[in-house]
Amino acid sequence: MHSSPSIAIIGSGAIGGYYGARLAQHGHNVHFLVRSDFQTVTQTGWTIRSTSGDFQLPPEHFHAHTSPAQFPPVDLIVLTLKSTAADQYDSLITPLLGPHTAILTLQNGLGNEQLLADRFGPHRIIAGLAWICSTRTAPGVINHTFGGKIQLSDYVGGATNRAKSVAHLFNHSNIEAEVLSDVRTGKWRKLAWNVAFSGLGTILDLPTDRILSTEAGVQLVSALVREIIAIAAAQGVSIPDEFADEIVPFTRKMGAYRTSMQIDRKLGRPMELDPIFAAPLRYARQSDVPCPRLSTLYELLSLLDASLTSGQQPLTTDR
Amino acid sequence: MHSSPSIAIIGSGAIGGYYGARLAQHGHNVHFLVRSDFQTVTQTGWTIRSTSGDFQLPPEHFHAHTSPAQFPPVDLIVLTLKSTAADQYDSLITPLLGPHTAILTLQNGLGNEQLLADRFGPHRIIAGLAWICSTRTAPGVINHTFGGKIQLSDYVGGATNRAKSVAHLFNHSNIEAEVLSDVRTGKWRKLAWNVAFSGLGTILDLPTDRILSTEAGVQLVSALVREIIAIAAAQGVSIPDEFADEIVPFTRKMGAYRTSMQIDRKLGRPMELDPIFAAPLRYARQSDVPCPRLSTLYELLSLLDASLTSGQQPLTTDR
Repeated sequence: MHSSPSIAIIGSGAIGGYYGARLAQHGHNVHFLVRSDFQTVTQTGWTIRSTSGDFQLPPEHFHAHTSPAQFPPVDLIVLTLKSTAADQYDSLITPLLGPHTAILTLQNGLGNEQLLADRFGPHRIIAGLAWICSTRTAPGVINHTFGGKIQLSDYVGGATNRAKSVAHLFNHSNIEAEVLSDVRTGKWRKLAWNVAFSGLGTILDLPTDRILSTEAGVQLVSALVREIIAIAAAQGVSIPDEFADEIVPFTRKMGAYRTSMQIDRKLGRPMELDPIFAAPLRYARQSDVPCPRLSTLYELLSLLDASLTSGQQPLTTDR
Repeated sequence: MHSSPSIAIIGSGAIGGYYGARLAQHGHNVHFLVRSDFQTVTQTGWTIRSTSGDFQLPPEHFHAHTSPAQFPPVDLIVLTLKSTAADQYDSLITPLLGPHTAILTLQNGLGNEQLLADRFGPHRIIAGLAWICSTRTAPGVINHTFGGKIQLSDYVGGATNRAKSVAHLFNHSNIEAEVLSDVRTGKWRKLAWNVAFSGLGTILDLPTDRILSTEAGVQLVSALVREIIAIAAAQGVSIPDEFADEIVPFTRKMGAYRTSMQIDRKLGRPMELDPIFAAPLRYARQSDVPCPRLSTLYELLSLLDASLTSGQQPLTTDR
């Protein structure tokens, strides 16, 4: 990694936009792939409201492109696309690759890094996860309301110097980042969070605080997390049982958060069901781990996803 | 039963209002317990839009009361209250009882007739169920869009002369009614329908046609119905497996129906979870019948019910 590396943000939504703007704010050379927000960000820049400090990033402090062909080869690609866009990886990523370009995936769920390793070679891939609540509230406007920590690990080699230099890049840009020797524990913990809160929030159309406002909600969240802990254990990933309880006060700190999957439902967009629900279910079936709640949630979400993306109108209006 | 019996409708909503108005239209002596609709029905009567024929029932053709104290003792009570009102049975029913008053329950789910038998004596009770889609669209206005058939059985004795005379009353009022020797098969079939369509419709905020518009929805409905068939079998109630498939075309005929439980969710009213979800789950646990979907649906509905009735606003706006 160069001392002043060039960075591409592929997926400039609530997560990619926030991290990219932070990196650019701290003087890094950031290129965003931007679509619907292009006019706003090239005219007025990024507007970030953040628990780590609000800021405005003027257009002259970053590069915005509407097509991968406009990018130079970069040192680091930060991939924050939804996994539902996996069929676009070749067209979006290949033009940006130099001989040493690294690809950091901050995508949700299981299997993203394997998929990227298969396409672009395992040595390019850095597996990561982001503990952040962030919402795009208008073109070029991001509201970062909780957390922000990134955990990462090189796909080949774990806590490599490259992984450390990427973490360093973030840590010097007001973004907490931690290198793990094995990112799988973090991935499964984040997965458990997503299963519970993206799952329940999307199915029931409830924000996190409403889910946790009732004893029935707390019990169901913990039961779902315990199912994921059991599936992870069968894969050799050990998460302490206490995590099923600790996740409740941790999530309460987020306030009334609506996950991106819940927003996808409202807008009738496809949901990230495979990496978050189908992938752990496949592991559960391999190892005969019972997971009645995960399994039923997946069936409910599959129904919703099929119903919403079959040319129907969005279900509910936003309040 | 008299040749011209007096009939009380307790619960004059979409179901009770429809059946009571049909009985009164055919010359029967019908007393409605009416609350919010009192002014409308005493001024302009009932307005019924029905697949069996629209009609207007003028106020002089029936009695409307706002309190049980205003009722005479009646021959037949038709109970169409939600089971969530079970704590009001004593105050609503006791004043209407003469020595031979029969109580026909058309309520959803399991356990209603046992509960009534315990309170008012088993010999008064007629267990029934209604296959009907009916919605109250405004005060005094009911939209009956599908079905209407009543199945019933005397709680003591099954196909008694009393059960037959009640069925006769309905059949001569343009309401299809059938006496069963054992109503339990019908109750469990209707329960399976309610678990699938009230359950999924309420959780996902989808009408019946949207649930069945996707293969994932059809599969989930059939899987839920098979769980109920298995629980019923362990109770000695035999429902053929084909019912899990037949329920799909049957329900498609209903069009875009929203169940009363779904409407309760929209309006933030308590839901009938005990007779429709908790009761079959208790049987399943007694007999060790696996029912992962029923169980998870109950947990999701319990979360929703607690969240909605904890003084929060209704979740979604009506389209």
